[in-house]
Amino acid sequence: MIIVMKQGASPSQIQAIKEEIEGLGLSPFIEAGSERTIIGVVGDDRAVQLDHFYTLRGVEKVIPILKPYKLVSREFQPNGTQISVKGQVIGGKKIQVIAGPCAIESPDQLRMAAHAVKKAGVTIMRASAFKPRTSPYDFQGTGKEGLKWLKEIGDEEELVTETEVMDPRDVGMVGSYADILRVGARNMQNFDLLKEVGQINKPVVLKNGLASTMKEFLLAAEYIMSQGNKNVILCYRGIRSFETAIRFPLDIGMIPLLKKETHLPVIIDPSHSMGRPDIVPEASCGMIAAGADGLLVDVHCHPDEALCDGKQALQPEHFYPMMENLRKIAVAIGREL
Amino acid sequence: MIIVMKQGASPSQIQAIKEEIEGLGLSPFIEAGSERTIIGVVGDDRAVQLDHFYTLRGVEKVIPILKPYKLVSREFQPNGTQISVKGQVIGGKKIQVIAGPCAIESPDQLRMAAHAVKKAGVTIMRASAFKPRTSPYDFQGTGKEGLKWLKEIGDEEELVTETEVMDPRDVGMVGSYADILRVGARNMQNFDLLKEVGQINKPVVLKNGLASTMKEFLLAAEYIMSQGNKNVILCYRGIRSFETAIRFPLDIGMIPLLKKETHLPVIIDPSHSMGRPDIVPEASCGMIAAGADGLLVDVHCHPDEALCDGKQALQPEHFYPMMENLRKIAVAIGREL
Amino acid sequence: MIIVMKQGASPSQIQAIKEEIEGLGLSPFIEAGSERTIIGVVGDDRAVQLDHFYTLRGVEKVIPILKPYKLVSREFQPNGTQISVKGQVIGGKKIQVIAGPCAIESPDQLRMAAHAVKKAGVTIMRASAFKPRTSPYDFQGTGKEGLKWLKEIGDEEELVTETEVMDPRDVGMVGSYADILRVGARNMQNFDLLKEVGQINKPVVLKNGLASTMKEFLLAAEYIMSQGNKNVILCYRGIRSFETAIRFPLDIGMIPLLKKETHLPVIIDPSHSMGRPDIVPEASCGMIAAGADGLLVDVHCHPDEALCDGKQALQPEHFYPMMENLRKIAVAIGREL
Amino acid sequence: MIIVMKQGASPSQIQAIKEEIEGLGLSPFIEAGSERTIIGVVGDDRAVQLDHFYTLRGVEKVIPILKPYKLVSREFQPNGTQISVKGQVIGGKKIQVIAGPCAIESPDQLRMAAHAVKKAGVTIMRASAFKPRTSPYDFQGTGKEGLKWLKEIGDEEELVTETEVMDPRDVGMVGSYADILRVGARNMQNFDLLKEVGQINKPVVLKNGLASTMKEFLLAAEYIMSQGNKNVILCYRGIRSFETAIRFPLDIGMIPLLKKETHLPVIIDPSHSMGRPDIVPEASCGMIAAGADGLLVDVHCHPDEALCDGKQALQPEHFYPMMENLRKIAVAIGREL
Repeated sequence: MIIVMKQGASPSQIQAIKEEIEGLGLSPFIEAGSERTIIGVVGDDRAVQLDHFYTLRGVEKVIPILKPYKLVSREFQPNGTQISVKGQVIGGKKIQVIAGPCAIESPDQLRMAAHAVKKAGVTIMRASAFKPRTSPYDFQGTGKEGLKWLKEIGDEEELVTETEVMDPRDVGMVGSYADILRVGARNMQNFDLLKEVGQINKPVVLKNGLASTMKEFLLAAEYIMSQGNKNVILCYRGIRSFETAIRFPLDIGMIPLLKKETHLPVIIDPSHSMGRPDIVPEASCGMIAAGADGLLVDVHCHPDEALCDGKQALQPEHFYPMMENLRKIAVAIGREL
Repeated sequence: MIIVMKQGASPSQIQAIKEEIEGLGLSPFIEAGSERTIIGVVGDDRAVQLDHFYTLRGVEKVIPILKPYKLVSREFQPNGTQISVKGQVIGGKKIQVIAGPCAIESPDQLRMAAHAVKKAGVTIMRASAFKPRTSPYDFQGTGKEGLKWLKEIGDEEELVTETEVMDPRDVGMVGSYADILRVGARNMQNFDLLKEVGQINKPVVLKNGLASTMKEFLLAAEYIMSQGNKNVILCYRGIRSFETAIRFPLDIGMIPLLKKETHLPVIIDPSHSMGRPDIVPEASCGMIAAGADGLLVDVHCHPDEALCDGKQALQPEHFYPMMENLRKIAVAIGREL
Repeated sequence: MIIVMKQGASPSQIQAIKEEIEGLGLSPFIEAGSERTIIGVVGDDRAVQLDHFYTLRGVEKVIPILKPYKLVSREFQPNGTQISVKGQVIGGKKIQVIAGPCAIESPDQLRMAAHAVKKAGVTIMRASAFKPRTSPYDFQGTGKEGLKWLKEIGDEEELVTETEVMDPRDVGMVGSYADILRVGARNMQNFDLLKEVGQINKPVVLKNGLASTMKEFLLAAEYIMSQGNKNVILCYRGIRSFETAIRFPLDIGMIPLLKKETHLPVIIDPSHSMGRPDIVPEASCGMIAAGADGLLVDVHCHPDEALCDGKQALQPEHFYPMMENLRKIAVAIGREL
Repeated sequence: MIIVMKQGASPSQIQAIKEEIEGLGLSPFIEAGSERTIIGVVGDDRAVQLDHFYTLRGVEKVIPILKPYKLVSREFQPNGTQISVKGQVIGGKKIQVIAGPCAIESPDQLRMAAHAVKKAGVTIMRASAFKPRTSPYDFQGTGKEGLKWLKEIGDEEELVTETEVMDPRDVGMVGSYADILRVGARNMQNFDLLKEVGQINKPVVLKNGLASTMKEFLLAAEYIMSQGNKNVILCYRGIRSFETAIRFPLDIGMIPLLKKETHLPVIIDPSHSMGRPDIVPEASCGMIAAGADGLLVDVHCHPDEALCDGKQALQPEHFYPMMENLRKIAVAIGREL
């Protein structure tokens, strides 16, 4: 349910509504807009009479939210959310291509990649120190050491940094090194992790699970927002299917659909979905044309030597022309990149 | 296997190769290019020694085709196939938006739709008289009567016509009314139908099955080509998955991947894949940007009254601005529409 | 809708109901039971008032069928259908293991297999002369020649025969050689073929499509029944999924669910679903215990030399002990085999 | 790689092998059998020469393990693992039906359910205090309070208890209240949780993820075993597919396949897979006949009032006859229940 206050409603009226909501065992989320304040009410509000709120002072109207997701829904917040971090905006006119190596392997490898993506105009770098790997015998990441390199090289190159967090116990620590945290596909329904990243105030990139429906994806984002963190960025990365020629088919329709259903920024991971670099540039053009707010791209200077997912990474010489083509598409649809 | 003849190889040399191939129980497919002739060899050629052909006169080189599909593969014909029908080219620089109602319901309904799509710049109209319906109690199409209307209205409006054929016994009859035949998703592995449309010389649009892999899709096209019909247009229309918010998820990566694997034109059906008109325009922009040669779009003047799949059809007032946006994307990637 | 006539309703009363139904543009299906006659009404009956029929003479009650499938639904016919062919009953107390080679390759190969399965107690033999193959370059079956061998060897060994039909033009011909016809998974929604087999009076085994829902499967059976052929046997053969260790995962719950939804016999294909013989015996035990009325099993005396799907066929030495184990399960659940 | 020691190999010889393995950066897992000791070697052993180990004293033979999973593979340990907890054995001749309510709601609700399942012959009770729920607004479980009730009522009724753990920080605490811990489907690739449960010495039930392959499932079990905990029980609970009539299709072939691939006990969850109680009894019969070592069944005395997944729970009056039928199947295949 959303309560829209009258223009000029007083702080004490707003406070009274807030207390009323809490008295019903529900949670109020207050958005003070430039013209009027709106109050989101979340929790099991099925037993609450909407009419009751009309009797309270300062209330303009009360709108039920029919979707199972509340705070993330476009109904709750008709304007798209823009998330700012160190001067970079995600969800604005500018399309953000977040790029970098899948895994942080060494300072040299990371520095080379950082240099390469910056040269292409990238302002946010991705790179993971913690890697969720299918086998316990595969390379598990460089951990805290890797995060230190990430911070150091991000500072050197003036790049905003984005990295994965897997364990709820690590959220604070990872947040002390990186600007944006990522919850990976395998952890989309790791609810304790979602609650933990919901309690920091850093942007969180949330990837959809391999077999998650759109509704489940948005409810996972709702877990984060309902803990208080409004800075959620959805990253769609495709789903598992029977097709073997492409790693995780990525439904192009999910981009406009997510943009309709939610006010959160929507970015796409062409690298982990396609699983092969040869079709990443054309697929990426399609994603941008369909309305994505950004991409999350694996770029590696020496993919053959990569310790993780190397075979899907783009080399800089293929990444540069792709960026040029993406720019042309961005301009054609009235955006920039 | 592909045999590339020397420049200036004589007709009798080519004839000798042809006989040699047939003597081995295989089938030769001869492509007389402007500079040199190439001969495709299909059938089970595993036991044949490539070296043997090098000893024959006029042979420049012999190239094995490693893919299970031969005639449809890009290895067999590196340049993209362009299919001409009544002055319209599919697979060329111009992106073809094939549009019209899902089903032919009445002369009036078809005429209105034809008028509407022509006004938007469309030159090829889709409309089906035979409808594969899940339930025997649903509207089954207007059959031969509908095809007569299709021919009449296509002629009136000077539109090339495209329509579905379901029964191998109807191929000749349907071909006498329409310019392009379509084999639907449910019939992608109806091998007797494929063989039948392989024996006419009209263009055939082949849609992928709901649970078909790319390899199976291309082998279905191979069935048609191996019967002699070179005019195959692939239409990707998404796959079945667990997601319920979108009818048949459409993997954007399949567009560049098909273009790499095959020389055939690739068009996309945004209407039957998305299953809802609200996201068709943005999804279509993505499909064009990713390299599709065309679209197959349901347009209906009164979707609420449609006898079949009305809820997914675009109304003309939404189709016109979509065409404008598609044109901008086409220009941005160096094509036209 | 089902109209249950009063005990002792006269033929003229029944005839009057029949005409009333036809006058409404619907189709009557009359079941003359030992005690009373029931009349199924199919077609789009949404606009028809049930009450109207209560006013007609001889009517006991009128029951709406809420399922989209009518004639195949358990509501329409509460007792399970038993289908008899040459003294063998499918859908009765006896569990029918239909076994034989995937494809008919030669008289010798078929005779050996027939001998082997008969020795194990099998009374119905499967073997296909027409093979739907993914590639046009794969073995396509022995066709009409193979059917002649099938008839000859079936007669010799006194085995009922079951074989696939793919082309609507072949239905009569195939029916002249074999006792039971099969519509394969790829043709489950080949509606012209369904209509054609609906017009003969031989039993038809209908396999589910690889990506078909239960509802679509039952509506495909409804296509056959609505043409007049009541002898439909459902064969569940699993679905396509992302798993690669098993060819087509076979949901054990589909067995009791189909038995609840429909009165038709339900058999299972453990060979094409599992795609590997090593797990067929245990999986088959599970299928029987869950309530299947029979199995459709690939048995081949020399699987390594098979021209089609050899790697999934059981050899006789593994088939015999499997039959013993199935018999124990059958007894434990009060059936026989 | 597995190193089989000679009969009578001395402790110092074994110690020498152990040190050799560690010196190569690999991990030894020593199984002291009644006749001879075998040593599993895990880690990236691709660069290690098998021959090298033959030169060491006491070595009988060296066997490579070709599967990506080592400790869980049947190659590593040909005999099936039997796991004992408070006198109950999982993986032995007796089939264990683990039953109880999905969620612990109150002491009364749990006590009634405990009583009901015990009366049916159950010796291990399932019940969850921590619930992974799709929406943050759904009932999230009774937490630590619920675990206290579980311990108290388990003690009263002399039932072994099994419950879910979701957060790596809770593993020790949950283990102090319950006899068997469960990692749910959504956490199958929550690798930090797997590592944590790998370090306790309580049995762990591991459920497969909704879109996990068999290989990924076994590698998740490998994560637990490679941390030292040998008491892993695999629980297969079906996969996500396009079918909507059944919640998570459960491939019957996965039971014999898992039993071939791994020595770990395999139990099945018919309740969460089927998602509807009406087909659970027949499906369960199929699972037992196919070789499952046990079941995990939701039983609730008042399903309509359940706070979670009530609609799939069996009521005691349906659970009792199901147990009778399962017993008949168990006897038919030479087991007991």
